[in-house]
Amino acid sequence: MTVNDQPTYNPGKGEGSPVGVALLGHGTVGSEVFRLLRENSDEFTHRVGGPLEIKGVAVGDVAKHRGSVDEDLLTTDAMGLIRRDDVDIVVEVIGGIDYPRELVLAALRAGKSVVTANKALVAAHSAELAEAADAAKVDLYFEAAVAAAIPVVGPLRRSLAGDRVESVAGIVNGTTNFILDAMDATGASYDDMLAEATRLGYAEADPTADVEGHDAASKAAILASLAFHTRVTYEDVHCEGISSITARDIEAARSAGYTIKLLAICERITGDDGVTKVSARVHPTLVPRDHPLASVTKSFNAVFVEAEAAGRLMFYGNGAGGSPTASAVLGDLVGAARNKVHGGRAPGESTYANLPVAQFGEVTTRYHVDMEVEDRVGVLADVSRVFSDAGISLRTVRQEESGDAARLVVMTHSAREADLSETVETLKKLDAVKTVNSVLRLEGE
Amino acid sequence: MTVNDQPTYNPGKGEGSPVGVALLGHGTVGSEVFRLLRENSDEFTHRVGGPLEIKGVAVGDVAKHRGSVDEDLLTTDAMGLIRRDDVDIVVEVIGGIDYPRELVLAALRAGKSVVTANKALVAAHSAELAEAADAAKVDLYFEAAVAAAIPVVGPLRRSLAGDRVESVAGIVNGTTNFILDAMDATGASYDDMLAEATRLGYAEADPTADVEGHDAASKAAILASLAFHTRVTYEDVHCEGISSITARDIEAARSAGYTIKLLAICERITGDDGVTKVSARVHPTLVPRDHPLASVTKSFNAVFVEAEAAGRLMFYGNGAGGSPTASAVLGDLVGAARNKVHGGRAPGESTYANLPVAQFGEVTTRYHVDMEVEDRVGVLADVSRVFSDAGISLRTVRQEESGDAARLVVMTHSAREADLSETVETLKKLDAVKTVNSVLRLEGE
Repeated sequence: MTVNDQPTYNPGKGEGSPVGVALLGHGTVGSEVFRLLRENSDEFTHRVGGPLEIKGVAVGDVAKHRGSVDEDLLTTDAMGLIRRDDVDIVVEVIGGIDYPRELVLAALRAGKSVVTANKALVAAHSAELAEAADAAKVDLYFEAAVAAAIPVVGPLRRSLAGDRVESVAGIVNGTTNFILDAMDATGASYDDMLAEATRLGYAEADPTADVEGHDAASKAAILASLAFHTRVTYEDVHCEGISSITARDIEAARSAGYTIKLLAICERITGDDGVTKVSARVHPTLVPRDHPLASVTKSFNAVFVEAEAAGRLMFYGNGAGGSPTASAVLGDLVGAARNKVHGGRAPGESTYANLPVAQFGEVTTRYHVDMEVEDRVGVLADVSRVFSDAGISLRTVRQEESGDAARLVVMTHSAREADLSETVETLKKLDAVKTVNSVLRLEGE
Repeated sequence: MTVNDQPTYNPGKGEGSPVGVALLGHGTVGSEVFRLLRENSDEFTHRVGGPLEIKGVAVGDVAKHRGSVDEDLLTTDAMGLIRRDDVDIVVEVIGGIDYPRELVLAALRAGKSVVTANKALVAAHSAELAEAADAAKVDLYFEAAVAAAIPVVGPLRRSLAGDRVESVAGIVNGTTNFILDAMDATGASYDDMLAEATRLGYAEADPTADVEGHDAASKAAILASLAFHTRVTYEDVHCEGISSITARDIEAARSAGYTIKLLAICERITGDDGVTKVSARVHPTLVPRDHPLASVTKSFNAVFVEAEAAGRLMFYGNGAGGSPTASAVLGDLVGAARNKVHGGRAPGESTYANLPVAQFGEVTTRYHVDMEVEDRVGVLADVSRVFSDAGISLRTVRQEESGDAARLVVMTHSAREADLSETVETLKKLDAVKTVNSVLRLEGE
């Protein structure tokens, strides 16, 4: 029997059957998953329809986890644990890409359903993982990969399955939101607030993945894939982080009535060639202070979804941390386990729309351009002409003295990224323009 | 073979099989469901795994719907349509209780999955409906019954299936939120703003179900059942509407830093006897103006969920209207249809926790009591003593002249409902108290 002749359903082990779980990883998230599974085991039995049994916990160093996990459950042989006959579901909360990829693929190919919180893995290898899950007729769940406990993957995959999503935009990285919020609240520099975030445990020792937007870009890829029924990977996402945002940028935004947020934005757009495309991007963005996203403070996350029939929806909550991530992992685990007991499969990857991914240059948005210019007659005319030559109309212009130069801040109406970036290059070459301090985008009006 | 010997799974019709849909009702929601199913039929085929085919549309008067629905699909024989062999799923968007109950039960018993937007039906007859669905191994979906397009049922049933929900509180009725928001914004009377809501189509000709809180109470029953894995029906919900809220109440709330919202509140509480119980109630509530629920304006809905591991989550969006409700119905329809094609069942009713429902008197909250009192020495002492005799401590007291009497507004610390209502009865009998204008509750601090 070839794979295609197999029934699409999984008949299930039957009510009351135990479901074996392999836990890969016992760090911040894994230890919470383990604790909650243990403490609430009766509840899980009721919710699944059979007991959830932890068959093993794979770790890098057994000695480190003795005491918090029963000795006989600890193993360094993750692959051996996955392949055990009594393991039905593999929960991957290790992090990284290459090693978990190998483990997750092995699990799926061995007929185990997989629950993962690993955004980097899912965003980089969604096709390969989805194909392995489909071939083996098992489930691949990853609610925890986007915005932790905030249900976003489920709503996009199930609740909005009868609607047409137009855009998804949100704050999906708690570290950068903490830093930007603190900069906005205190006027302090990026470096100082990054140090504060590190001190308080909101930023990791190496904060690159967060502050450069890589983490948010993985989530944008996942959100765009779900929203538009199209395969969008990490590589397709235009990504800019927050490390070049200055106290001056924050202050300029504030005085114009905005705050700066790192947004992941996924849209259905019409490309230059008239074709409907998908755009996914992550960049610091000016958001009006009365927009709901502006009031998302500290390390909270929020995701806006705009759909044809549903209109605008917002989901808000804790987007990171051991417990919130464990909540999402355990919700997925119950779903995967129910299917192992009762039969059936969760909806898998949906890529039928297969829309092309837009070039970043095709995206249109509005801009906030902050320049040092010479303090003399005619400068404003020269600068304005550069914008108008590119067909970009200006919405507001603010000029102020700044020592022996002048500072010129313009906000544009909607323009194409390609036109804007060309315009900025021209501005840089203009005698009248000493430096372009920053180019930021505006959304949410 | 008895029912218990049957496999718990539904094997599915197989990839590519058509799924027959009976649409019961063609009003505001039904016509949107019909339109979207028609316009996006290719998308639905991809998402389901087989074509969704509308087999008939049951209406009360065929003549009224000619032109918008193909003549050969229209029928007044809903029961006949349900029983057709080529109908796999029944979508009920008629409204009311008795007639749809008969139809939905007949559908479930005939092995059809059911999608309904009918909160009154689900809240009044959940047990009977769930048992019929379980016996026939089919799905009963009702995301649209609570807050229309805002995913709430799905997140509680699936995403939070691995967590312990502590409370669910929200604005789940758009009509009353529109009226209260308009009263707050304009200072106008309840009657005037109800008239405005009616004129703009936010209130029905007979607004009773909305303004007296019955609609919100049905939703509270559904939310409490899902959140606490306990059967909670409409009859279990303490319900007070907004028709007695005056411009003076709104003004008093405003001057204390609050706004008044009609909240549905579902909590896990410890009863007088030390037993963990479920409380579900609907009443006008003072909410601090900086609380996220205070900024939910017009006819929007928002639901807060607090769970042990996830922390606080908020879901926000359009809670009513043809298109948003159709979005939720169609999301459910895709889910039910996927199961008909691929096999498996959605999670059904979960009542294993079976917690007792608390008496309203056991609930503790804080209160805002507004009285006319005699304008003489000793009145405040008399009134204070009544509260202290009942063990209720006061948080703020505000007294102001009001003609030949005085107005006394007190806010209490947390107290039991039973103690507070006894206290109010005592106050009413006190010589010093001319009238008790209003007793309102406070939440969200």
